[in-house]
Amino acid sequence: MSRPPFRSAQSNFTWEGVDLLAYKEEGSAPFKDITRQVLFQDQNLECELRYFEMAAGGHSTLERHEHVHAVMILRGHGHCLVGDEVREVAPHDLVTIDPMTWHQFKATKGEPLGFLCMVNAARDRPQLPTVDDLAQLTANPTVRAFLENS
Amino acid sequence: MSRPPFRSAQSNFTWEGVDLLAYKEEGSAPFKDITRQVLFQDQNLECELRYFEMAAGGHSTLERHEHVHAVMILRGHGHCLVGDEVREVAPHDLVTIDPMTWHQFKATKGEPLGFLCMVNAARDRPQLPTVDDLAQLTANPTVRAFLENS
Repeated sequence: MSRPPFRSAQSNFTWEGVDLLAYKEEGSAPFKDITRQVLFQDQNLECELRYFEMAAGGHSTLERHEHVHAVMILRGHGHCLVGDEVREVAPHDLVTIDPMTWHQFKATKGEPLGFLCMVNAARDRPQLPTVDDLAQLTANPTVRAFLENS
Repeated sequence: MSRPPFRSAQSNFTWEGVDLLAYKEEGSAPFKDITRQVLFQDQNLECELRYFEMAAGGHSTLERHEHVHAVMILRGHGHCLVGDEVREVAPHDLVTIDPMTWHQFKATKGEPLGFLCMVNAARDRPQLPTVDDLAQLTANPTVRAFLENS
């Protein structure tokens, strides 16, 4: 096995033996001030568990895909869009993102926002919104206000 | 879908819309003062995410199985046995339990010990130790001290 059975939490939401990675390849999609750590990825596990963290003011990509995201907020407060719902989120809140549902996380509260995300190891690539998709999304005033808040 | 996209954390490590369940069927295996909450279980996810919590002095079953456990401590401090290693664990520590590895969690520090556990949705049933297995385990003084600490 490539990792020991015990890996301690370290300061500032990092872990022993876990690399602090770029969220995505730079320029591949819109995002801001967000990092990725892969906590569990194992040939004997059919899912992966990742930890994503945005600095204050940062955000994940607005996207959708066939695979499901199972999220638990781990650090800080912020806002999250799922479909046409926008909610303020707090530590240990659960967020489920169903197939082909637009979603985005934003660290809107002047502090980092970090979350665990469980996904199938075998999964499709995310889709970015087209101009038409954005027009449809922003027709909802709540969604529009969330998307314009940066 | 059977659950809303957002489910808030509530007091004392419980969640909106998540049932607080018995750890296992009473009498099916040795355990003490431990509860189970299934946070994510979805036909589109190939794993489940559960939260287990022991009261102070409680413990999970000493067992092994082919499926892997991917654990993050979420609440409190305690001790954990994996194979022939015993470690004190603290919030956000990661524990990986590889196939057919004996393991047990104990709330040894006078406080509740709670952890997230990711597992494959399709998995084998746990095995309990035989008399011979226990003799082999307790031949290691560290493991013996852990198992005798209740």
